[in-house]
Amino acid sequence: MNSHNVASITKPETNGPVVNGVPTGQLLEVIGNIQQDAEMAQFQFRLQNRWMGGSINRSLMDQWFAEGHEQHHEQPFTLDADEPVLIAGQDTAPTPVEYVLHALISCLTTTMVYHASVQGIAIESVESRVEGDIDVRGFFGLSDEVRKGFKAVRVVMQVKSEASAETLRELAMYSAVYDIVANSLPVDVVLEKA
Amino acid sequence: MNSHNVASITKPETNGPVVNGVPTGQLLEVIGNIQQDAEMAQFQFRLQNRWMGGSINRSLMDQWFAEGHEQHHEQPFTLDADEPVLIAGQDTAPTPVEYVLHALISCLTTTMVYHASVQGIAIESVESRVEGDIDVRGFFGLSDEVRKGFKAVRVVMQVKSEASAETLRELAMYSAVYDIVANSLPVDVVLEKA
Repeated sequence: MNSHNVASITKPETNGPVVNGVPTGQLLEVIGNIQQDAEMAQFQFRLQNRWMGGSINRSLMDQWFAEGHEQHHEQPFTLDADEPVLIAGQDTAPTPVEYVLHALISCLTTTMVYHASVQGIAIESVESRVEGDIDVRGFFGLSDEVRKGFKAVRVVMQVKSEASAETLRELAMYSAVYDIVANSLPVDVVLEKA
Repeated sequence: MNSHNVASITKPETNGPVVNGVPTGQLLEVIGNIQQDAEMAQFQFRLQNRWMGGSINRSLMDQWFAEGHEQHHEQPFTLDADEPVLIAGQDTAPTPVEYVLHALISCLTTTMVYHASVQGIAIESVESRVEGDIDVRGFFGLSDEVRKGFKAVRVVMQVKSEASAETLRELAMYSAVYDIVANSLPVDVVLEKA
């Protein structure tokens, strides 16, 4: 990835072409800002969540932080989570672990498309599938030896493009969520009595 | 957690009470099945994703696997992912990394509520917030020394309940997504040319 990653583009053009539907000028402007000042690269994403009773809870996303400023989504997003009926839920929304799989596969796709676009690699189509195996004895506290989350996750991406599978995979591996899921990360959980 | 986790309940009652809106009988039935046969604990979640062009892609969830059988959601779920305008997106849906935060906070909440319910601990309300810090130089390939995903995640849960903050936090820490995000996990990514 040394020769052809986006870092090799040293002169951002804010009016770059739209490649694969991605306005590369906008991307190169962000990259240029970050190259000039590492503080501009410090982003923060946030959300609030409220328990709705039983198996259902709801998250709200609005404000985030990037390039030294508070940012807002065009409109706030809400996401519900639920559990299947089999696991005492009402099945009105995806489960938390399905949200992880969506985060992973969507990030791999967007990351590959973004990096390809900046490099001028045309992509015609991307269709992917992901599956995650979980032994729920860990979650239910039935065994200390069984981990609580997925024990393995497999992704298959089918991509129509002139570029080689190897190149496309290298681009996808810049994915933030791949890094989050595959590697460990400090997660601080504080519980306060309301 | 040794004395009061759900594993200590050895005789599942399928007609258990509804606690915190959770039908504990249903949960105890699943737990009972798993205790009798570890194969029943092998679950698999899956989804398919299609790139919609530019910054947008869409996941479909329908079939999953649990208790030795293929399962279906009551209805298929679709989830979009997008990027903010600042990052060359259209901001029509949450970003992949926001989906990770939603997965984490929703799983912590449901896990705490489920374990509390089985133990007869009443919970009145749960309101939480989460933030994740990311240095996007990693994602953009501008530095090999900066990780691509979140470098740190912080969660604050505010819970109204008779139980102590320590007990409630212990219950939340059975979360599958906490384990996935905090710890490393084998993620296999195969890229095929379509």
